Amino acid sequence: MNIRFYNARVLTMVPGQDIFMGEVWVMGDRIAFVGTMQEGKKYIEEKLKEAPLWEREIDCDGNIIMPGFKNAHTHSAMTLMRSRADDLPLQDWLGNQIFPVEAKMTEEDIYHLSKIAIMEYLTGGVTAAFEMYLTPFSVADSFRDCGMRCVQTSCVNNFSQSIELLERYYNELNGRDEYNSFILGLHAEYTCSRELLEQASELVHKYKAPFWAHIQETKKELSECMERYGMTPIELFDELGLFDYGGGGYHVVWTTKDDRRIMKKRGLYAVTNPASNLKLASGIAGISRYIEDDIPVAIGTDGPASNNALDMFREMFLVATLAKVKDDDASSIDASRVLEMATTNGAHAMGLNDADCLSEGKLADLIMLDMHQPNMQPVNNIIKNIVYSAGKTNVVMTMIGGIIRYENGKFNIGVEPEEVYKKAEEISKRIYG
Amino acid sequence: MNIRFYNARVLTMVPGQDIFMGEVWVMGDRIAFVGTMQEGKKYIEEKLKEAPLWEREIDCDGNIIMPGFKNAHTHSAMTLMRSRADDLPLQDWLGNQIFPVEAKMTEEDIYHLSKIAIMEYLTGGVTAAFEMYLTPFSVADSFRDCGMRCVQTSCVNNFSQSIELLERYYNELNGRDEYNSFILGLHAEYTCSRELLEQASELVHKYKAPFWAHIQETKKELSECMERYGMTPIELFDELGLFDYGGGGYHVVWTTKDDRRIMKKRGLYAVTNPASNLKLASGIAGISRYIEDDIPVAIGTDGPASNNALDMFREMFLVATLAKVKDDDASSIDASRVLEMATTNGAHAMGLNDADCLSEGKLADLIMLDMHQPNMQPVNNIIKNIVYSAGKTNVVMTMIGGIIRYENGKFNIGVEPEEVYKKAEEISKRIYG
Repeated sequence: MNIRFYNARVLTMVPGQDIFMGEVWVMGDRIAFVGTMQEGKKYIEEKLKEAPLWEREIDCDGNIIMPGFKNAHTHSAMTLMRSRADDLPLQDWLGNQIFPVEAKMTEEDIYHLSKIAIMEYLTGGVTAAFEMYLTPFSVADSFRDCGMRCVQTSCVNNFSQSIELLERYYNELNGRDEYNSFILGLHAEYTCSRELLEQASELVHKYKAPFWAHIQETKKELSECMERYGMTPIELFDELGLFDYGGGGYHVVWTTKDDRRIMKKRGLYAVTNPASNLKLASGIAGISRYIEDDIPVAIGTDGPASNNALDMFREMFLVATLAKVKDDDASSIDASRVLEMATTNGAHAMGLNDADCLSEGKLADLIMLDMHQPNMQPVNNIIKNIVYSAGKTNVVMTMIGGIIRYENGKFNIGVEPEEVYKKAEEISKRIYG
Repeated sequence: MNIRFYNARVLTMVPGQDIFMGEVWVMGDRIAFVGTMQEGKKYIEEKLKEAPLWEREIDCDGNIIMPGFKNAHTHSAMTLMRSRADDLPLQDWLGNQIFPVEAKMTEEDIYHLSKIAIMEYLTGGVTAAFEMYLTPFSVADSFRDCGMRCVQTSCVNNFSQSIELLERYYNELNGRDEYNSFILGLHAEYTCSRELLEQASELVHKYKAPFWAHIQETKKELSECMERYGMTPIELFDELGLFDYGGGGYHVVWTTKDDRRIMKKRGLYAVTNPASNLKLASGIAGISRYIEDDIPVAIGTDGPASNNALDMFREMFLVATLAKVKDDDASSIDASRVLEMATTNGAHAMGLNDADCLSEGKLADLIMLDMHQPNMQPVNNIIKNIVYSAGKTNVVMTMIGGIIRYENGKFNIGVEPEEVYKKAEEISKRIYG
């Protein structure tokens, strides 16, 4: 499809580039042109001589065209447990509400349940998810069938899957189709034996690949690792060579100065999940410390059992404002910094270097935000509006790889919403009774 | 208008009543019937013999019908400054960004700027706002002309308006029209002389009326009052007799045990504004302490210059989850409690005892939430879904006093959205240049 967006407020997220009124042209799965009205006109005149006709020309009427959000940590299929396990102490939540249910979920269940999350991503302008769940092959199928971009890592641990499976995921999911890729990782220190960590390190070195895990989400996780090994999970992973080719951690709520020194040295990313960290009472991550220490931060929703919405707007608001209250300083962390985290940094953390901003040759993973709703008026400062005031309600279009997957409330994912919901209800009935 | 909602999931917010599949009938500005399918059928058969025909019969298709949210603290016309004054220290924000702009705002400006906020309330299922701003008469006109319910208090202080005006507001706005009412109040201790507080107390006693103000929003406010008077603002107000007929405070982030003893004794409400308190680094209110001490809590957004969205879903999520992280306990404060705060408690705090729940004879201030969006699926626990996962995107209808003011993205407020935006841009241009 060749699609031309015009009369748009274009927010490219190219560093140093301001918002301008202009055009974005999409040809195939890539961005063919981004420019101001003026350049656009000249370009059209030249280009139209050789270019194919537009399948669609979309008058954006002053709406924003910008890169899609990158949800840098999630467990999509946990839609099954959404709102079933709230307001409980963490141990009760995990031990009695999550693990027993997960034991009953099949690969096929996970395929179907992931689709509810994928639909929610689309309604919220998320164009790629950094996913971790039990059955990576069926998760990949689900994302591919919906036309949604997915970067997976594994949740291999002592009780689930194996190091052999981890290597298979890595080899078979990378390059399998245009929507999926896979990055090495394990669930977390507290669920993995030293032997498993050492085996993972062998893979890291065999493939010279980055490594990811849940890291230092709770105080308990930190103190128990200190007891076991006399060091933090980050120190342990580093000593085992797991970070020799970079990578990062999800949550990273509780880090020491030494941890951050290692993160900086190894080029690690910190993926923050503020809504989940509040709701499970894990704590408030010190995002300003990461910024000071020059550690790139990306943002994820975590899974729908712990959040419960998959909403990057909510997460952005929380990243900015929790930093302010934690630092006791209303000027702490600017909105534009947070928007980078939710787009550019997320893309880089996930290895999606072709989906980090809007410029010629990049993947056409982009969204349109409605400026004609009252929460965006008057038009004072658009970036601050996006971070502090916008919401899913403003997302009127989500495009992935040049294909519009969501537009004005309608999905284009190869299946009807009500079918997806019906399937989920059936699974829910079977598992919960 | 006589409107019948059927095939609805009805959430009445009547204490002890569970959600049921059923009907809600609206006749004029009131609710004529709420009941299950079964009762509904019988009732229809009986009632149809005498009742007028329905102007509309709305098939809710399993969507939720519930009371609208009560935004228990806001400054609507501050839409003018939305996203113009973010990421700044509080003193800079107030002294350089807010006060100088307010000095340039006319009564007519405030009339027009309030409408943007009113539209946003409607998109977010808010059916009444507890408003405080500079020109109560033009604010009241704005709400009346849009058909939106408004309870005002004043921001009278040493520098703006007067005690005489306060009495005029009280006498002239109560009973003026069906949408507006007025409650006695002042801006805050730190902006009002002792003399002004004493004059307000005379009005409180003259009218035997409750009293409201911004109270103990910041640590600084608390400590400066301690220096001035050797007591907290709550203690001072109580000593001056301002709370002799009840009332409450906005924000109340920093309260002592003695403060809460007074609040309990006087039957005061605590209106919490978590998004604003985070964004301005004011702190995290101890909501669990209010619950323990049996002090009713309501929820407000605060104004769009400090929040910046007027979104009760965001506030509900924050009330619940900030309590969890503050209390270091994921089981702290249940979602159902928070939903009460955002609906029933808000109505009671605002004196809207006829708009607190859905039952026969109550005001038809109600909303419809879309269950067919992915963030509400699968249908596990609807109340937890509303508090933790729903958003403005789920609000498909907002009715106030029996009139649908917002439905599927369209407004019915006597003016076109683009006209409202254009007016605001003109004002913005005049004031900011």
